[in-house]
Amino acid sequence: MTIEATIVDIAKAAKKAALAMATCPTDKKNQALLALADRLHKDAALIQAENKKDLEAAKATGLSSAMIDRLTVSDAVIASMADGLREVAALPDPVGAKSATWRRPNGLEVARMRIPLGVIGIIYESRPNVTVDAAGLCLKAGNTVILRGGSEALHSNRALAATISASLAESGLPETAVQVVPVADREAVTHLLAQEEYIDLIIPRGGEGLIRFVVQHSSIPVLKHYKGVCHVYVDQDADMEMARAICFNAKVQRPGVCNAMETLLVHRDAAQRFLPDMARQFADAGVALRGCAATRALLPGIETAEEADWYAEYLDLILAVKVVDSMDAAISHIATYGSSHTEVIVTNSYDRAMRFLAAVDSSVVLVNASTRFNDGGQLGLGAEIGISTSKLHAFGPMGLEELTTTKFIVLGNGQIRE
Amino acid sequence: MTIEATIVDIAKAAKKAALAMATCPTDKKNQALLALADRLHKDAALIQAENKKDLEAAKATGLSSAMIDRLTVSDAVIASMADGLREVAALPDPVGAKSATWRRPNGLEVARMRIPLGVIGIIYESRPNVTVDAAGLCLKAGNTVILRGGSEALHSNRALAATISASLAESGLPETAVQVVPVADREAVTHLLAQEEYIDLIIPRGGEGLIRFVVQHSSIPVLKHYKGVCHVYVDQDADMEMARAICFNAKVQRPGVCNAMETLLVHRDAAQRFLPDMARQFADAGVALRGCAATRALLPGIETAEEADWYAEYLDLILAVKVVDSMDAAISHIATYGSSHTEVIVTNSYDRAMRFLAAVDSSVVLVNASTRFNDGGQLGLGAEIGISTSKLHAFGPMGLEELTTTKFIVLGNGQIRE
Repeated sequence: MTIEATIVDIAKAAKKAALAMATCPTDKKNQALLALADRLHKDAALIQAENKKDLEAAKATGLSSAMIDRLTVSDAVIASMADGLREVAALPDPVGAKSATWRRPNGLEVARMRIPLGVIGIIYESRPNVTVDAAGLCLKAGNTVILRGGSEALHSNRALAATISASLAESGLPETAVQVVPVADREAVTHLLAQEEYIDLIIPRGGEGLIRFVVQHSSIPVLKHYKGVCHVYVDQDADMEMARAICFNAKVQRPGVCNAMETLLVHRDAAQRFLPDMARQFADAGVALRGCAATRALLPGIETAEEADWYAEYLDLILAVKVVDSMDAAISHIATYGSSHTEVIVTNSYDRAMRFLAAVDSSVVLVNASTRFNDGGQLGLGAEIGISTSKLHAFGPMGLEELTTTKFIVLGNGQIRE
Repeated sequence: MTIEATIVDIAKAAKKAALAMATCPTDKKNQALLALADRLHKDAALIQAENKKDLEAAKATGLSSAMIDRLTVSDAVIASMADGLREVAALPDPVGAKSATWRRPNGLEVARMRIPLGVIGIIYESRPNVTVDAAGLCLKAGNTVILRGGSEALHSNRALAATISASLAESGLPETAVQVVPVADREAVTHLLAQEEYIDLIIPRGGEGLIRFVVQHSSIPVLKHYKGVCHVYVDQDADMEMARAICFNAKVQRPGVCNAMETLLVHRDAAQRFLPDMARQFADAGVALRGCAATRALLPGIETAEEADWYAEYLDLILAVKVVDSMDAAISHIATYGSSHTEVIVTNSYDRAMRFLAAVDSSVVLVNASTRFNDGGQLGLGAEIGISTSKLHAFGPMGLEELTTTKFIVLGNGQIRE
């Protein structure tokens, strides 16, 4: 069978299973998630034996130790996948919820009913835990899912797929509700992205290169997130101590993630009070600063920020710093260089807090809190499947509800159109 | 300047104007809409003179009279565009509305705030009234818009664009909040669809060929609607008279539109009571029936429905008719051949009505009412910009709210992440 035929068969099977999943009762979905959590522990030795094959191949091809770390299905990873599934089982089921009903002059009663999206394709890189995490979220929201992980994790993902299918069968759900693409060739991705007839949504998870490839080649809608160039703006009316605590947390607590701060904007009237102490704190934590001319006048030892620095997602202990003349200048800088991800204002000015919230066009805008709160769990959405920085369908962290849509339902008693 | 450079300039200007529009007060937007309504009447002679150039060229190239009718900006079309704008001005502004706030254990207060999408590209065929209707809806929702109409309407659309820009300037809004692509080449569309950096959404309006072209070539999200193969299922417990009235309305009242019925499904226990009388009514109205074997046993004179008929969007006085063994068979037929647009059940069974509503995967599902109610105005959304049959972002008729999205806003008092 050609790769294309394999992919078409998978997509058709997913579409067929989606019909059954769409009206699957909540209990049955939860039962499958809990069965899978148990079975992951039971099948751990099998899964880890397959994972070992991937790890050996990865070492042979000289993959970086960071990559190998992400590829490893340790006991802790097994436990974390199982715990994640139990958490998803405990979340409320979004499917079937009806909006308030409105009544039309002709007596028609109209409401929106929440329904699954249908078939979701997930394209991701080396972490095998995504296979289970994404499957759990998609299933809970009544969807079926096609998973295409990195080729270097193929043995691990196939083993996880077998465990998932066994749990589905045990719980009376269609085994093809979750499918792993069983071929390593990149060609499989291109074919997957062409199955518009069967697949409702593609979610790519990985580096910018992968995501741009998916967007370029997909005729299916894509929920995506290119990068997080997150800003903190320290206003002239900020509490200096609070501002430093927020900035330190935003940059240092976990610098390698998309919601870490990459550029610090400081109002010129706060710069003298704020920057020297802040710079000492950052220096102690090993953060390298790159500043504009006004910043460097206050912090003479630091490097110069070039134009490229304002666009940079360092994902590292590096921070671009700019002194701005006004909040409007900060907003305008964010509009020019930002990535619509996460921006913070630190201020005690009610007026400027409200204006910043309204004017900044990012998925999460915060007053007096760290950028690190742009996260589904932290914002109370439950588990998240990613963060969207494009505006269609979802903008910001995506939880269970973002894996659903609504249809209109209309109750009549014989109405016809005049 | 190359066509590509022209398009990039337009897209950049739209993005820049979007910043100003996003925080534009409601009053000012409404004022611009009302100013435009007035100015359309004032500029009518100018617009119609330009329209005459398009009409003459269309006649010279032998365009069909239906196409010429759609291209004509008559006094009635001017009045209808102006009235439409006044209606949109009277609708509530969706922008800035905040959801209920929820409080996290660490004291963060989280809410969703409704915001414009940003820049919307509309690609459409010959009707020049779309230029004004779409511009009005996009503006009211705080967006900027790039309009690319059919090349045969270019003079008309440029004249309308001049009228729109003058009204925007008069009301203190950026003149580039509405722009018409000033070149006829199809190449302009391809370049437009590549401006992912500046354009947030593409809405194609026209035939299936245009829409498939846009989906294939766009790296920007597309809200689309391929076709409406709408079904009415007449259950064994239907009120026969109501069923006939609904079916007649769904097929005959306006057969050329996407929410007209194309296939009638009848439960076998209702077929004898329902079909002969229904067929007489249809025959009187000139509707040609194409039936399955069981239908033809009751209505011997009609044509046979072939496999292709179950997929057909006739947009004409033709109807495919099938007798089914059960509601589940009807649901399964709809899942196989339908277009996720509009489906109706006529029944007095509460149980089957509820099951049909839950199981049928279409943008609007109705009980005991005509398919013709799948329409933004009829469902109470106000004016609509189209009907989406794909599930991302919007599913069903799209009103003002569907031209917006939400961002998260978070109010803190110094929270950092542990």
